[in-house]
Amino acid sequence: MPPKPPIVLSTDFGLSDGFVGVMHSVIYSISPEARVIDLTHFIEPQDVQQAAFLLFAHWRYFPEGTVFVAVVDPGVGTTRKPIILHTNDDRFIIAPDNGLIDLVIDHYGVKSLIHFTNREFYLSQISTTFHGRDIFSPGAAHLWKIGNPLSFGKPISYRRKLPYYILHVYQGDTAIIEGRIIHIDRFGNAMTNVMWHGNEPPRGYIEVKGKKISFFPSYGYVNPGEPLALVNSEQMIEIAINQGSARFALAISRGERVRIVIVN
Amino acid sequence: MPPKPPIVLSTDFGLSDGFVGVMHSVIYSISPEARVIDLTHFIEPQDVQQAAFLLFAHWRYFPEGTVFVAVVDPGVGTTRKPIILHTNDDRFIIAPDNGLIDLVIDHYGVKSLIHFTNREFYLSQISTTFHGRDIFSPGAAHLWKIGNPLSFGKPISYRRKLPYYILHVYQGDTAIIEGRIIHIDRFGNAMTNVMWHGNEPPRGYIEVKGKKISFFPSYGYVNPGEPLALVNSEQMIEIAINQGSARFALAISRGERVRIVIVN
Amino acid sequence: MPPKPPIVLSTDFGLSDGFVGVMHSVIYSISPEARVIDLTHFIEPQDVQQAAFLLFAHWRYFPEGTVFVAVVDPGVGTTRKPIILHTNDDRFIIAPDNGLIDLVIDHYGVKSLIHFTNREFYLSQISTTFHGRDIFSPGAAHLWKIGNPLSFGKPISYRRKLPYYILHVYQGDTAIIEGRIIHIDRFGNAMTNVMWHGNEPPRGYIEVKGKKISFFPSYGYVNPGEPLALVNSEQMIEIAINQGSARFALAISRGERVRIVIVN
Repeated sequence: MPPKPPIVLSTDFGLSDGFVGVMHSVIYSISPEARVIDLTHFIEPQDVQQAAFLLFAHWRYFPEGTVFVAVVDPGVGTTRKPIILHTNDDRFIIAPDNGLIDLVIDHYGVKSLIHFTNREFYLSQISTTFHGRDIFSPGAAHLWKIGNPLSFGKPISYRRKLPYYILHVYQGDTAIIEGRIIHIDRFGNAMTNVMWHGNEPPRGYIEVKGKKISFFPSYGYVNPGEPLALVNSEQMIEIAINQGSARFALAISRGERVRIVIVN
Repeated sequence: MPPKPPIVLSTDFGLSDGFVGVMHSVIYSISPEARVIDLTHFIEPQDVQQAAFLLFAHWRYFPEGTVFVAVVDPGVGTTRKPIILHTNDDRFIIAPDNGLIDLVIDHYGVKSLIHFTNREFYLSQISTTFHGRDIFSPGAAHLWKIGNPLSFGKPISYRRKLPYYILHVYQGDTAIIEGRIIHIDRFGNAMTNVMWHGNEPPRGYIEVKGKKISFFPSYGYVNPGEPLALVNSEQMIEIAINQGSARFALAISRGERVRIVIVN
Repeated sequence: MPPKPPIVLSTDFGLSDGFVGVMHSVIYSISPEARVIDLTHFIEPQDVQQAAFLLFAHWRYFPEGTVFVAVVDPGVGTTRKPIILHTNDDRFIIAPDNGLIDLVIDHYGVKSLIHFTNREFYLSQISTTFHGRDIFSPGAAHLWKIGNPLSFGKPISYRRKLPYYILHVYQGDTAIIEGRIIHIDRFGNAMTNVMWHGNEPPRGYIEVKGKKISFFPSYGYVNPGEPLALVNSEQMIEIAINQGSARFALAISRGERVRIVIVN
C-alpha cells in the first residue's frame, strides 16, 4: 500500500518572517499525520508565472493524491476567489484564482474545479492579508483528510489567466520555435518554456543574443566555462554553462527571447 | 483529542552552516515522535529584539503545549542564564535570558520561570559557543516529553530587558501614538510596534517621513504602487505599498519613528 | 530502544528551485517512516570541499545508522561513480565519487565502499542532470530500509581526491601549524582546518594577515568588536570577532593562510 500522500507548500513568503512556520502549525493542528514538504518559499514576490512554472515542472515527482498549497497572492483581501483544482491525474492544488494553476491544467487537465467557500474549513478568524494561513492551509489540511473537494464549495468553470504556454517538441520533429526563458535556477541555468519529448537528446541549437549554442547530453560534455543547450531533468530545454552560470556569462534574464532550432 | 504539540525553532543561525540540521538531530534523538517546525532561522544575527517580536507576533497560531526554542545568543559561553518560561496560556519558551521572552511575557504572562540548570537534560559535552545544540535543543526535547519545567531547575523572578514595548489601541479609541517600525518583512511591508484590537479597521492615518498615509482594509484597496496603512494578519499596524515595497519606496528602515493618528 | 536513524540531506541546490522538495518527495514515497533532516542546501555551487567539511564537522551529532545524502555534483551525467560509504562508526553516505567523503573517511574510516550500480534502487527514468533526485535520493531511501549497502553494487577501493586535510592538535602539544580558513559561517566566524583535542582551551595565538590573535574560551571574553581565537563547537580552531564578523573586520576569505602557534 502506498504511503498517505504529502501536503506540499509553494509560496513567495521567504523564510525570514515566520509565515511558513505558522502555515506548518495550522496544517499540523488539523492533520497531524500528514507529511508536509516545502517545494519552495522563494518564488519572487508576487510572481505568479514563476510559481505556475515550478508547480508544472516538478508535478510528476509527487505521488497521486498530493495536495499542493500554492500561495502567491497579490490580490489577497480583494474579491479574487480561493479555488481547489482536482486534476485528471488525481492530484490537488488549493490556491488563489490568479493563474497559478494554468500550466498544470494545460498538461494534466481538470477533473473538477471548486470555488472554495465553505467556511467550516477556514480558520475561525480571517485576516485580510494572510489567506495562506487562514484559508489555504486549513483548506489543504481538511482536503488531505477528506480526499475530495466537492464539499468545499460549488464547481466553477475554468478561465485561463497566464499570458504564456509550455510548448512541446517530439522526437523526430524538425522545428524552429520562438520561446522564452521562464526560470533561471540557483546555478544560473536558464530554462525555456519548451519541453522535449524523446528518448534521445534533440539535434540542433538555440539562438540567444546572436549566439548559436549546440545541444549536448549533459554539462560535462563541454569544457568548463563553455555554453551548451540541453534537456534538463524536468524535460525542459535549457541553456547552461558547464561549471558556470549562463545567467552571468551570457547576461540572460527571465523573459529573454530565444530561437530553438531542431533538425533531423 | 488534539495532536501532541510541536517543538518550534527560532534562531539567527541561517541555513548555510548545518547548525539547524544538528539541532533537529539532537531533538529527534531524544523525542523522535515530536513534530519540529522551523519558525525562522533568519533573525538578523544577534538581533534579540526582532526575535522577541516574531515570537510574540505568531504566538497564538501555535497550539497549547508548544515548546518554542529561541536561540539568539550574543552572550553564549558567558554567565547569562538558560531559562524556561511557562506562560499563563500554557506554552513554553526555552531560551537564553536576554530579553527574547519579554514581549510574550508582557502579553501572555508568567505561570513559572525556571533557571534551567539540571545537567541531566543537557548534552553530556557542553561547548562554549553552541548552546542551541548542547543545552536548548536537548532541553526542549526533554521538556516536550515531561510537559512541566519544574524539574529543570529553580524558579527565578523575572526582570524585563528589552527597551521597547508593544502598544495597544482598541476599537473606538481616539489616539495619537508615537511608535516605531520594528520589523520589515520579505515584501517590504513595515510593521509598527502598535497592535490593533477591533473588528473594523481603524480610521485615521500614519505619519512617516513627513507623509500622511491613510488606513485601508487591505493592499488591493489602493492602486498598485500606492502606499497604505493597514492592520496586518498579526493585528499589527503596518505601512505597505500595494504590489510594491514600503522599505524601498518610502526608504523606511527598522527603528524609524512613526506617528499613528486614530480618529473616531 | 533508540529511534530509527534519520536520512540527512546536504546539497548545493538552494531552496529556490524546488529541487530539494522533490528529493523529499522521492524519499517519502519509498520510506515514508523515515525522518528527513536538512543539514544544509546552501553549499556554494559545486564546492565539494565545503560540503566535505560540513559533513565532517557535524558528523558525530547524528545517530548511528544515519544515512547522509550528499549531492554536490559538477560531474553529473558523466562517468563519475555514485558510491555508498559505510563508515567504521556505522553511518552511511551516498554521494558522487568526487571527494565529498574524504574528510569523513580520514577520521571515521571505511567499513565498506560500494559502487552503487544496482538500478533496482534507482528511479525508473534517469535524467542526465539531476541524480540527486533519480539516483541518490531513492538509493538513500532504500538503504535506510535495508540497512546494508552490499546489495547496492560491488565493493571498490578508496582513492582520496581532496587536496587538503584536517590537522589535529592535542592537549599539551607545542606546535606551529600552517593552516587555512576552510569555512566562514553566517556570523562571519572563520574556521580553520585545524581540530583541537583537549579539555582546556589551547594557549597561544593565530597569525593572520600580519596580526596576532590570542585564544580565549568564548566570544564574550573579549569586548564587543575585538578579535579572538577559540575552539568552536565542532572543536575546530576559529577566528572570530565578539558580536561582529571576522569575515568583514579582518577581510578574511576562504583559503586564507593562517599560522597557529600553540605554546605550553
